[in-house]
Amino acid sequence: MAEATIKSMESCIEDCLACVKACNECYDACLGETHIDKMRDCIRLDRECADLCAFTAHAMTMRSSYRGELALLCAEACQRCGEACAKHEHEHCRRCAEACFRCAESCLKLARELSAL
Amino acid sequence: MAEATIKSMESCIEDCLACVKACNECYDACLGETHIDKMRDCIRLDRECADLCAFTAHAMTMRSSYRGELALLCAEACQRCGEACAKHEHEHCRRCAEACFRCAESCLKLARELSAL
Amino acid sequence: MAEATIKSMESCIEDCLACVKACNECYDACLGETHIDKMRDCIRLDRECADLCAFTAHAMTMRSSYRGELALLCAEACQRCGEACAKHEHEHCRRCAEACFRCAESCLKLARELSAL
Amino acid sequence: MAEATIKSMESCIEDCLACVKACNECYDACLGETHIDKMRDCIRLDRECADLCAFTAHAMTMRSSYRGELALLCAEACQRCGEACAKHEHEHCRRCAEACFRCAESCLKLARELSAL
Repeated sequence: MAEATIKSMESCIEDCLACVKACNECYDACLGETHIDKMRDCIRLDRECADLCAFTAHAMTMRSSYRGELALLCAEACQRCGEACAKHEHEHCRRCAEACFRCAESCLKLARELSAL
Repeated sequence: MAEATIKSMESCIEDCLACVKACNECYDACLGETHIDKMRDCIRLDRECADLCAFTAHAMTMRSSYRGELALLCAEACQRCGEACAKHEHEHCRRCAEACFRCAESCLKLARELSAL
Repeated sequence: MAEATIKSMESCIEDCLACVKACNECYDACLGETHIDKMRDCIRLDRECADLCAFTAHAMTMRSSYRGELALLCAEACQRCGEACAKHEHEHCRRCAEACFRCAESCLKLARELSAL
Repeated sequence: MAEATIKSMESCIEDCLACVKACNECYDACLGETHIDKMRDCIRLDRECADLCAFTAHAMTMRSSYRGELALLCAEACQRCGEACAKHEHEHCRRCAEACFRCAESCLKLARELSAL
């Protein structure tokens, strides 16, 4: 693996883990919101995204052969979760959207370098 | 490992997996309920319980040294989730409570046999 | 989701879980083999395959939007692990290869029905 | 949750994730060692420890009720894996042992503060 790709992977692991954290904090806060009926999509996508980011980060640390394809799938989940969160004005949603978009970009970059794209 | 314990573990794996399924189906259905504000506990506990059951079953299949302690923790999560679900009349909650209580019992039995208790 | 697809998903969950079990048992046994130097690939692929099958089954039970794409990736991991195991004559490898090939087929069928292919 | 405990949890999440990384890198390297027959324990414990650290970190980010008990179990897995790695002179084992011992300490501290001890 090229030096540049190793660096991309290190960044990607960090961005995935930051995204797990932001998604799970958003999930937790959404479940406590007064207007929880408006947060259904957020809750569902937060969990999906957190689960996939955690699994992808884990796969990257063990240099799994599937890390490229997982990064691609993870980028998709992050993008979708980020878009849902960006529609809300809660501070936790705003922070989650930010982490999601950063992670989506990072995953796409890595997937491209690993030739999964 | 004694023959009886192997049998208990096989049953426990099955009960954990049935519980993952029931909890995740209940989680999915709860997120779609009209009165979602009354389902907050269910949603949260369904996810926790499903995650822990899936992890415990995985640990049992790989004969992890921590399967006894995980089974004990899993029993606690199942008991708590089952009690929350049992308060609701939705069919998915009823089915979930049933799977949780069966799994709690099964995990306790195994934990006892593995001397984790 | 069509009735037929629901049935395919139920079978697929079962096949994934049987594959987790077979892979982890094979992993465990490989680590105990006298000629462990010949089992390196098996050990590595067993873990990757078990992890991915467990995650995919979990995603299917919660009707994650990514279950189709995960099923496709899972099919690939199962195929590769099955081929590695099929080269060995150990009983655990033979059983693992069988579970892997069945799961690969089941995942492909589901992915096709979910239009992930 | 007290301010101090929040800080301990943030540190613990970081230490768990660093431990996942070190364990999985050690696992990967052990599978490539010439004398793999001497690395059996390392491989097995690396995987167990990485899985448990990843799961515990995930549970902490979602403020799961079981994070205290998981931290305690994680401390045990880290301690055992660290001790096995410390017996070897490979650079990856040395780095893994270091990450394990730091994580064990961090998990114990958190478990104590969350009254899981």
